[in-house]
Amino acid sequence: MTTTMPMLATYPQTINLDRAKLAATIDAINACAQACTACADACLSEEMVAELTKCVRTNLDCADVCAATARVLSRHTGYDANLSRALLEACATACRSCGDECAAHAGMHEHCRICADACRACEQACRDLLVTMS
Amino acid sequence: MTTTMPMLATYPQTINLDRAKLAATIDAINACAQACTACADACLSEEMVAELTKCVRTNLDCADVCAATARVLSRHTGYDANLSRALLEACATACRSCGDECAAHAGMHEHCRICADACRACEQACRDLLVTMS
Amino acid sequence: MTTTMPMLATYPQTINLDRAKLAATIDAINACAQACTACADACLSEEMVAELTKCVRTNLDCADVCAATARVLSRHTGYDANLSRALLEACATACRSCGDECAAHAGMHEHCRICADACRACEQACRDLLVTMS
Amino acid sequence: MTTTMPMLATYPQTINLDRAKLAATIDAINACAQACTACADACLSEEMVAELTKCVRTNLDCADVCAATARVLSRHTGYDANLSRALLEACATACRSCGDECAAHAGMHEHCRICADACRACEQACRDLLVTMS
Repeated sequence: MTTTMPMLATYPQTINLDRAKLAATIDAINACAQACTACADACLSEEMVAELTKCVRTNLDCADVCAATARVLSRHTGYDANLSRALLEACATACRSCGDECAAHAGMHEHCRICADACRACEQACRDLLVTMS
Repeated sequence: MTTTMPMLATYPQTINLDRAKLAATIDAINACAQACTACADACLSEEMVAELTKCVRTNLDCADVCAATARVLSRHTGYDANLSRALLEACATACRSCGDECAAHAGMHEHCRICADACRACEQACRDLLVTMS
Repeated sequence: MTTTMPMLATYPQTINLDRAKLAATIDAINACAQACTACADACLSEEMVAELTKCVRTNLDCADVCAATARVLSRHTGYDANLSRALLEACATACRSCGDECAAHAGMHEHCRICADACRACEQACRDLLVTMS
Repeated sequence: MTTTMPMLATYPQTINLDRAKLAATIDAINACAQACTACADACLSEEMVAELTKCVRTNLDCADVCAATARVLSRHTGYDANLSRALLEACATACRSCGDECAAHAGMHEHCRICADACRACEQACRDLLVTMS
């Protein structure tokens, strides 16, 4: 459905990572970014928004870090493993924080439940990719 | 597969657009952004990169405009139709330029062919959504 | 203070716009993006956040559109006047909405007052640049 | 000149960092992001672009990571020191890579020289802020 794997398959040089695994990671990151952007806005529309301000903030951070991480992982020219690793660590950290925060509201807000799942999946994908890079 | 429609379905207030159509548009925009980021990098790795510099630039522009547009369309709180329309126009313009540029290299570079398709689909989705908004 | 004008001065090819005017516009856009990101977060920390949710949303939109616009205006290779124009229109629209919204809270929140000023300055800079492009 | 410090001064709650130092760091990060976006495009316009493809890529990465870092540092609601630290590490890593790459071309391309300086200043600012956070 996404363009990630078809595009990765056409990259004209070597990539030192499993392309299918990399594509799945990028897709998980993009899905998480989209969920976090939507969850921040859904929280803003809840009547109890005053109790969700930390959730909004964590969502915004997670969306921004995921967006940057997906872009860096989508580039292979002049590959820099140090940056990919540092950014994957930051992305996993953002997803952990946001997943925890959303999980705390998951019983009351369905958008937080779905977003928490996206954050968990993204964190796991980032950590799995980190393992293959070391 | 993506989180766009499930998240849209949980937005707790009214949305003055068809949610399925909106989700499909956001997915097309995100797919285009991902393709453009990857195509810019693939072009950089081609031996004939000197003939692809306009393609790289157009890809980068299109990725940035798509990313902003997807985010704005994912917010419904305090909806501003004027901004959505102006941004959809800009996004369709970016996709037209990038689709044309990539199409010119599609016979030689598979990444440009796939990216051109993603740009065409995204341009069409933006224009379709614009029609329903007027 | 910023790197915008020094970098523009070193661009190795022709630019069909006045470089000083272009640099000032990009600086105004970046300043607006920064103000909007900060204002969204400051609004989240106000006790009356429930009355500021539209302001948060407008700030987030304006920051995203400004970020994309500043990037596109910072590229000159394979220049596409149609995209620059469409994006400057969208950016001016975002700044108008956000400036109006922040101005409505400027008497009560100093962050909204400063942000409204940044939005006004950015909107004007975008419209001025649009005039020189037509 | 920038809106960073005036906006920080109006944040309505406690910030556990020196506001002037934080503002200077954010300004350095934004200046670096702007320089990197411009340097990537200037490299694309050089006749010897084929020898600058790694520089383009490193510039794009650095711009993306800086943009995300500046946004996260501009938020104080529900502050998460773990994420700030991880992202500052990633940002310093991106600036080191990009600064080294641009420095290698600084004798030949003035845009690379200015960008290398912006990367060095940003890396130092990130590392200084990290010290005050531990």
